Amino acid sequence: MPDTQPLDLQAILQEIHAKLEPRLGEGKVADYIPPLARIDPRKFGMAVVTIDGQTAMVGDALEPFSIQSISKVFTLTLALGKHGENIWKRVGREPSGSAFNSIVQLEQEGGKPRNPFINAGAITISDLILAGHTPREVIGEIVRFMRYLANDDEIVIDPAVARSEEATGFRNAALANFMRAFGRLDHPVEHVLGVYFHHCAIAMNCVQLARAGLFLANAGVAPLSGHTVVSRERAKRINALMLTCGHYDGSGDFAYHVGLPGKSGVGGGILVVAPGKASIAVWSPGLNQNGNSLLGSLALDMLAHRTGWSVFGA
Amino acid sequence: MPDTQPLDLQAILQEIHAKLEPRLGEGKVADYIPPLARIDPRKFGMAVVTIDGQTAMVGDALEPFSIQSISKVFTLTLALGKHGENIWKRVGREPSGSAFNSIVQLEQEGGKPRNPFINAGAITISDLILAGHTPREVIGEIVRFMRYLANDDEIVIDPAVARSEEATGFRNAALANFMRAFGRLDHPVEHVLGVYFHHCAIAMNCVQLARAGLFLANAGVAPLSGHTVVSRERAKRINALMLTCGHYDGSGDFAYHVGLPGKSGVGGGILVVAPGKASIAVWSPGLNQNGNSLLGSLALDMLAHRTGWSVFGA
Amino acid sequence: MPDTQPLDLQAILQEIHAKLEPRLGEGKVADYIPPLARIDPRKFGMAVVTIDGQTAMVGDALEPFSIQSISKVFTLTLALGKHGENIWKRVGREPSGSAFNSIVQLEQEGGKPRNPFINAGAITISDLILAGHTPREVIGEIVRFMRYLANDDEIVIDPAVARSEEATGFRNAALANFMRAFGRLDHPVEHVLGVYFHHCAIAMNCVQLARAGLFLANAGVAPLSGHTVVSRERAKRINALMLTCGHYDGSGDFAYHVGLPGKSGVGGGILVVAPGKASIAVWSPGLNQNGNSLLGSLALDMLAHRTGWSVFGA
Amino acid sequence: MPDTQPLDLQAILQEIHAKLEPRLGEGKVADYIPPLARIDPRKFGMAVVTIDGQTAMVGDALEPFSIQSISKVFTLTLALGKHGENIWKRVGREPSGSAFNSIVQLEQEGGKPRNPFINAGAITISDLILAGHTPREVIGEIVRFMRYLANDDEIVIDPAVARSEEATGFRNAALANFMRAFGRLDHPVEHVLGVYFHHCAIAMNCVQLARAGLFLANAGVAPLSGHTVVSRERAKRINALMLTCGHYDGSGDFAYHVGLPGKSGVGGGILVVAPGKASIAVWSPGLNQNGNSLLGSLALDMLAHRTGWSVFGA
Repeated sequence: MPDTQPLDLQAILQEIHAKLEPRLGEGKVADYIPPLARIDPRKFGMAVVTIDGQTAMVGDALEPFSIQSISKVFTLTLALGKHGENIWKRVGREPSGSAFNSIVQLEQEGGKPRNPFINAGAITISDLILAGHTPREVIGEIVRFMRYLANDDEIVIDPAVARSEEATGFRNAALANFMRAFGRLDHPVEHVLGVYFHHCAIAMNCVQLARAGLFLANAGVAPLSGHTVVSRERAKRINALMLTCGHYDGSGDFAYHVGLPGKSGVGGGILVVAPGKASIAVWSPGLNQNGNSLLGSLALDMLAHRTGWSVFGA
Repeated sequence: MPDTQPLDLQAILQEIHAKLEPRLGEGKVADYIPPLARIDPRKFGMAVVTIDGQTAMVGDALEPFSIQSISKVFTLTLALGKHGENIWKRVGREPSGSAFNSIVQLEQEGGKPRNPFINAGAITISDLILAGHTPREVIGEIVRFMRYLANDDEIVIDPAVARSEEATGFRNAALANFMRAFGRLDHPVEHVLGVYFHHCAIAMNCVQLARAGLFLANAGVAPLSGHTVVSRERAKRINALMLTCGHYDGSGDFAYHVGLPGKSGVGGGILVVAPGKASIAVWSPGLNQNGNSLLGSLALDMLAHRTGWSVFGA
Repeated sequence: MPDTQPLDLQAILQEIHAKLEPRLGEGKVADYIPPLARIDPRKFGMAVVTIDGQTAMVGDALEPFSIQSISKVFTLTLALGKHGENIWKRVGREPSGSAFNSIVQLEQEGGKPRNPFINAGAITISDLILAGHTPREVIGEIVRFMRYLANDDEIVIDPAVARSEEATGFRNAALANFMRAFGRLDHPVEHVLGVYFHHCAIAMNCVQLARAGLFLANAGVAPLSGHTVVSRERAKRINALMLTCGHYDGSGDFAYHVGLPGKSGVGGGILVVAPGKASIAVWSPGLNQNGNSLLGSLALDMLAHRTGWSVFGA
Repeated sequence: MPDTQPLDLQAILQEIHAKLEPRLGEGKVADYIPPLARIDPRKFGMAVVTIDGQTAMVGDALEPFSIQSISKVFTLTLALGKHGENIWKRVGREPSGSAFNSIVQLEQEGGKPRNPFINAGAITISDLILAGHTPREVIGEIVRFMRYLANDDEIVIDPAVARSEEATGFRNAALANFMRAFGRLDHPVEHVLGVYFHHCAIAMNCVQLARAGLFLANAGVAPLSGHTVVSRERAKRINALMLTCGHYDGSGDFAYHVGLPGKSGVGGGILVVAPGKASIAVWSPGLNQNGNSLLGSLALDMLAHRTGWSVFGA
């Protein structure tokens, strides 16, 4: 779809919101920890920030939510910054073809996680970021990175979410211990999980999140500040990983329908990158069967259709 | 990389060829049937056809080779034409996370293949294309479709390859019988396999193949003839499938390094689509551990780097 | 339980029959081929033949039924006779831990079946028995072996069952083709399956079956004729295989409750060996979730309890 | 083999020892914790205790070793005593068909372990025995039970082994956390693992171990004291579980060659029950590929052959 005239993004977002209004509440809110289970399922927010600085938003776009696995995009970015391409000795780059927290593949592949966006892979990334530091130091570093990217010092970790994750994260503890058994973690299991549970507990709103991801749409440069966050090449590669692995076992479906790199979280958020155009964040707590936001995915499908944004189009 | 001045594609291909020259022969040539095992491992051809009609080529770009699984892109296109989005009731759209001919996933998922590019999925597509016709009719239809897309009436099936595939294709026979046991094939196993083995045995050269794939780079329209092959939306979606599933268990790696939709075959060919720019075909028989052309992948990585073509860049 | 006074086996069988009478018809009759689906689910027969020549029987003990996988005990015996312990290069001796016709394990273990009693293993045994002969010759040999063991020339193959198995045996065709793909069958897939489908279609009644299995209870010697069928050592070993692998994924449960070596078939029959005591056959077509006769298993549990027969007792 | 004249067990053991003497040191000693890695691989001990009170022994039969997984027979006995057949709601009774510490099956089967002798199953048994008590109380109870069965108050837990297991047992921690994630443990992971690691660290010699298992050969009655430990029926059932599941993925092989219920441990010990005859313990630290004592298995094969003891013979 040739975008010969400027898109009215604010109007498009309002149109999407209006169409989805009757369906708010659909899907299944994550209930494995009380702070997530308590979220109103009818919440819906969406924000688009273009690389030339425009912001459009709708609904609950200024209400913070738990970004959960979306944080994995940013810890991956940090790990690449610290260790470069060496991280691929520790974690793969292939779609997993199974549920996000499957331990089967991990056993069959000697404890090396498939990619940095499944839980085992993100736990490995936490181990890589630790790099001899204390969990407290590293958690602080991650939060500062998010504030810097979003240019907003109010971003914090939700302590109730972090505590709940720690108290009930038996499956993640299983994954971490399992990788430790294969000699694949350098730091104590408790430290690694401490970092992991805390970065998943970061709370952000849609506008903050869209701003934080904007460097990926702009060849690695944060357009608002002009700072180079990563190289052009690295930005492409992070986008490639989001496209092939960003939605667990629904990644192929998301690529098919939306056609843009994205990363979802069980809090109901999705961050999406339209290279050369914009960064988009959506939030709707009800999840589909693959653990991705049901209406959020739909909203993005509608946005992609209305704007013509797609990495696969002419 | 802003392409402010026109790319000299012919010079770029020659440069790539020169750099790979010392490595020709690397990788492992497919040896499961004699006609493939006999291929000279030092063959190398590459062709780029742009949407505005330019063609650049190098090496053995005019020598036909067995396109094998690359044909799956075209049978998928035919099946979508015949049945539309209904085909997704019969085959999934997710990366498989396991080897291209694995039967494990098929059992765990009730005989429904993960995607149309793994063997089981392509066999299902053959069953869909049959649609009550004889294998002979359908095989003729596929060849005519390839001739039409490439605008070249000399494209044929290599009968020696087809016979060899039939005589030794026990694993594909296992897959087909297995799906039949789940009630997932409408036609006799022999008919379905007949279609499958024959379309894998189509022989084409790099220029023909690049031309045949050009509609995917041009929003569904074959630019040379002006014919609309598929809708803009469908072209995007086929590209999305190629990106997430086109290289078996090396799809993530290909997206990471090359960043363009593509489909490989065990004959050593790879077809790649640069949306809005060009269609590319490369041929080098030696395969890497995932069954994709070793030097072919490398050549595409170099081409993507030199041209800046990537679906993930700004 | 010390058997100081002779057991009245006829009375015990009648008591078991009476107790099960109200439950006849329970379980799910195999329905994958019409000749089995048509069987009256209320059929029930049981026979005990002791090593000193007594026969007790009850219900439909003289009505022939399709012995199906019970035939695998006898083809294993034949294969051991032809090739000795060399057969273990081709098939394992371990319980499978998964459904009887699973193809997953076969892939993970390079096409070598876990044991001779799962389908893949029995197909391998058919390949071993063929040994260069025609399927017709080998099928004849198997039938003659059954007649010899049961001392009854009226035992035949049910042609309707054999034809149905061949027409619908896609999963077994998948298994055979899959093993052929691994180079693990010496004969054409059609020949091997021909033998397999025919020996599964042998029809016998409970008395014939109990007689045929009596050599396994008597240290390898058929007590009625005095012929040595196998060595004492081999009889023990076949019994061991029946105990660990004879009931698919219900083998542990059968050992726990009944405590005697046995082999079941989807026709609803079970052959059981009480070493030093007797051979028992039971038939009731309704199957439990593991594909073993529901009431047949129960009848054997009751018999074991009443007689004290168990390989695990003092 | 009819044992018309009394067996000279002492002579048989000496003969076995002499035959194996040249091979002492074969196999791979468990090296996952230092206290086991340090064991002299040439150690070899064997003891037979008959139900009428005779004891024969040879080699290092009076030197304590780490019984490891053999302890699982006794914790199972305790759990059956506390909860009866209800324990089968929490753990299965089927052979696993995969390595003893595999987590794959656990995921596929919803966190319910296949049987009480694989690690996950034994951890579940520890949880069942805890029954609201402290780990210290329960560990004391287990040790007292072993002393009572062996009639020997000198049996203790090796503290160095217990500490090492706790410090390095990441895979068992993974299994326990994984089951906890499925809601399948009632007590804190640390408590359950504390019990598990300690009972695996019990040290006993061959004579003590053979005495402790003697009730299983004698219909549930400890013949030396005359105490009934379990019912006749329960003794049979524990024997059945040992036969089908006692040697991990080598259970079928052990049943085939030795033909007696047994349980192995990675410390190199094996406990074997000959119902109505005797209890046997052997110790040789070198393991085969399935994690069972290499020469210990061989010694038991020889013993079974020389005595004719087998549950499968006439």
